[in-house]
Amino acid sequence: MQSDAVKPDAVQPEAVQTVPVWSADPRTGEQRAQVAVEAGPPDVDRAVRAAAAAEPALADRALRAALLRAAAERLESAAEEVIATADAETALGVPRLTGELARTTYQLRAFADIVDEGAFLDVVIDHADPALARPDLRRMKLPLGVVAVFSASNFPLAFSVPGGDTASALAAGCPVVVKAHPDHPATGELCAGLIREAARAIGVPEGVLGLVHGLEAGLELVRHPLTAAVGFTGSVRGGRALHDVAAARPRPIPFHGELGSLNPVLVTERAAATRAEELGAGLAGSFTLGNGQFCVKPGLVLVPAGEPALEKALVAAAGQAPAGPLLDPRIREAFLAGVEQRSAFPGVEVLLAAGSAPVEGAPLAVRAGVLAVAAAELREELLEECFGPLTVLVRYSGTEELAAVLDRLAGNLTATVQLAADERGPEAAALLQRLVPLAGRLVVDGWPTGVAVAPAMHHGGPYPATTSTSTSVGGTAIERWLRPVSYQNGPPELLPPELHDANPLAVPRRVDGRRES
Amino acid sequence: MQSDAVKPDAVQPEAVQTVPVWSADPRTGEQRAQVAVEAGPPDVDRAVRAAAAAEPALADRALRAALLRAAAERLESAAEEVIATADAETALGVPRLTGELARTTYQLRAFADIVDEGAFLDVVIDHADPALARPDLRRMKLPLGVVAVFSASNFPLAFSVPGGDTASALAAGCPVVVKAHPDHPATGELCAGLIREAARAIGVPEGVLGLVHGLEAGLELVRHPLTAAVGFTGSVRGGRALHDVAAARPRPIPFHGELGSLNPVLVTERAAATRAEELGAGLAGSFTLGNGQFCVKPGLVLVPAGEPALEKALVAAAGQAPAGPLLDPRIREAFLAGVEQRSAFPGVEVLLAAGSAPVEGAPLAVRAGVLAVAAAELREELLEECFGPLTVLVRYSGTEELAAVLDRLAGNLTATVQLAADERGPEAAALLQRLVPLAGRLVVDGWPTGVAVAPAMHHGGPYPATTSTSTSVGGTAIERWLRPVSYQNGPPELLPPELHDANPLAVPRRVDGRRES
Repeated sequence: MQSDAVKPDAVQPEAVQTVPVWSADPRTGEQRAQVAVEAGPPDVDRAVRAAAAAEPALADRALRAALLRAAAERLESAAEEVIATADAETALGVPRLTGELARTTYQLRAFADIVDEGAFLDVVIDHADPALARPDLRRMKLPLGVVAVFSASNFPLAFSVPGGDTASALAAGCPVVVKAHPDHPATGELCAGLIREAARAIGVPEGVLGLVHGLEAGLELVRHPLTAAVGFTGSVRGGRALHDVAAARPRPIPFHGELGSLNPVLVTERAAATRAEELGAGLAGSFTLGNGQFCVKPGLVLVPAGEPALEKALVAAAGQAPAGPLLDPRIREAFLAGVEQRSAFPGVEVLLAAGSAPVEGAPLAVRAGVLAVAAAELREELLEECFGPLTVLVRYSGTEELAAVLDRLAGNLTATVQLAADERGPEAAALLQRLVPLAGRLVVDGWPTGVAVAPAMHHGGPYPATTSTSTSVGGTAIERWLRPVSYQNGPPELLPPELHDANPLAVPRRVDGRRES
Repeated sequence: MQSDAVKPDAVQPEAVQTVPVWSADPRTGEQRAQVAVEAGPPDVDRAVRAAAAAEPALADRALRAALLRAAAERLESAAEEVIATADAETALGVPRLTGELARTTYQLRAFADIVDEGAFLDVVIDHADPALARPDLRRMKLPLGVVAVFSASNFPLAFSVPGGDTASALAAGCPVVVKAHPDHPATGELCAGLIREAARAIGVPEGVLGLVHGLEAGLELVRHPLTAAVGFTGSVRGGRALHDVAAARPRPIPFHGELGSLNPVLVTERAAATRAEELGAGLAGSFTLGNGQFCVKPGLVLVPAGEPALEKALVAAAGQAPAGPLLDPRIREAFLAGVEQRSAFPGVEVLLAAGSAPVEGAPLAVRAGVLAVAAAELREELLEECFGPLTVLVRYSGTEELAAVLDRLAGNLTATVQLAADERGPEAAALLQRLVPLAGRLVVDGWPTGVAVAPAMHHGGPYPATTSTSTSVGGTAIERWLRPVSYQNGPPELLPPELHDANPLAVPRRVDGRRES
């Protein structure tokens, strides 16, 4: 359909695949098993074409909803194996992964409900109005085409093969090809198999969900002429590189990337004075949760100078956090190097030393750390995300110094303000307002970790938090994979039922300017 | 607020401006008057900073709506001068420009109504739900920041300084800096002055609307750290270049460009057999409207081979279209060269010769042309837009040949199908469905020219029609300039009134999953 579509005869003859993909144990660094081989260009091409061929089946909204629910059921039926496999590859632990699987199946079913409701179709009908020289116009949203999804290292389920990008894309009617994450290739294969089984069982071609492994395969996937959009969760460096590839295509495509975020927390003077213990313990719990491997980990905390109680409580609580392995040896090395580099900057005080901390069964475990620096000595490097259990306190004196730090912050997924119980007046409102340009979610008197799957959630923020204005969590994540189409003077016989006057499918819509629920 | 924000001391000392901007008469090619000078980097910086400084005033929705209405009033008060100036620079004629001004003021007021209604804020409230471990979440959409708007050559009002991009951006709460089009710099200055007057009169800083001239100024505008998004209407070449600049910024920004479109029309065999006269005359009217200078001009028409009646009617009607000037000498040269190149391809039949056709008062006038070619001889170059009064008939024999041509088409703003009165069955539906991937608006038994300003309008389409999935016409054009923000656990005292439970501003919203109108 597109002028840059690959001609079948342009496809290379199949090369022998030689790069094995191993599943490894991050507790020890040892390889577990070879689970796949890296995909070459012909494999990627095949996966994308199979996905495109499955798109017509997704035109039936009832079938889409059924697919999402069937996928949730298969994942639940195989829960034990899924969780064990994910734990063996990521060391995230059974309790966390049990919760993550529940989140994943909840998400799949939530999108099925969204498909059933049909509000996302954004149906608008304007009947012809000769007075305005207006023809009959009927608009709805249609799927974009094949969506490429890049799995995240830190969520082997909820932001990977069966995760929110996949669920929202399928809900939109878009087939998916996932680029597996090298930290959990076996989990990826297992989940992809389950979703493909679910598809087969309800009569959708199993090509509706493809899976490829390998860095080059990911690039190929973004470049493929039939790929219509990309969902990505990962690092600023990797995400920006893929964003640039998507933008440089002959036909540029939307790239919805969630990259990096510092998630600044601002503690007011009165909050520190009145809630020191609670804030110290709460912050420790938030930044060490999942061993600091959340995209919404609070990595920079603005605290009033000269409030040792909060710092003391924080260090005491964070010191109790158990040492644990990170997702892979590369992430571990980057964390240790990041801690070392930051700790050595002039003016940086090491309140709690992060570092290697081998434990029984996990020689690669690390322990959490806390650094502190005066606002006047805050270097640019301390404004970069350090993935893992580290947080940096920035001690400010007075509102001017505070404002100066805020001015230096780039975009974030979240920004948090911790207030005293009686800070509810215009000053507090102005402070919150001051954080609005910094982030997509503003948390008051809470912590940014924990991203609820809810219609009002926004998980995105100014660059580099995300590369677009979209969210990757919550119902509106579906909007990323749709485009509006207007029909002008279409006779009812030729129009989709969603656009018929009688509204046989009972979709929410706007007719001649009036909203109908 | 952004890490790549320009430091004030990084601004260059002001250079002496030396490049004059002239208003010219496209009927004769003669210069009318110097109306401005091209903006250097310091001028662009000043305009963007003045716009950014005006943003807080737009936070008040009532003031935004007032500004849009006041702008419409000023434009109407100065209608005679506006129309005369635009006509002197564009030769579009007083009747057309009178209509365009009415469209422009209608658009401004329609966006004021949209601001008043508040549905675009997309308010979603989810109350805390301990069972789902869900905190209180409240989401709404907020303005992105300064929007850069690039004026279109062919709509000196409705897609230029006071046009849809500006109106939708102001409605969203975003100040605007417009890059004037060199075809109508005087009109741009006049309209900008009127809008700035309107702003002053209601207490909004006049920097809310900036205007700069010059190609380099346009690039500078897209690169400026405080520019948050771009709206563009123009050529594929120019638009793609700016798209790439926007994507390559340290902080990439949304680029909503409407570039080029062939606007294919498909005439079925039975339609040609039963409606030849009507279709010939209708097509002639559509492709010569505005001297063929519409982005939705039907530039490629698939007609059944061996149906001379339609072609005869078309040529007869198009031959009656008065010769007239194009928007500028460069466009005229490109048109004449495009006609000459296309006419010389093997297999191309010149049914009506387009070319230079001097008339009284307009020595630079051109007349319309019609080319025809067999589907089997359709070269790639004939699939490129030729701006101006030319259309190309592609004669197809049978459905396979038809499908082969459709397969070669890139994205379009519109795709049209002309059916016979009794073609309302599954075959016709399949044919319409076949056009869906090609365009953002599907016209049945009508013509694509005439883009109604209506909620159900979508003016956009797959690349290169547009560079995003957005529309530049109709109410949803406002969505381009907004980003969602969620507040988590925000006490009511600190939240915007739109997010209060009591809904004091009566905005449409979704609360705990239920839509409230």
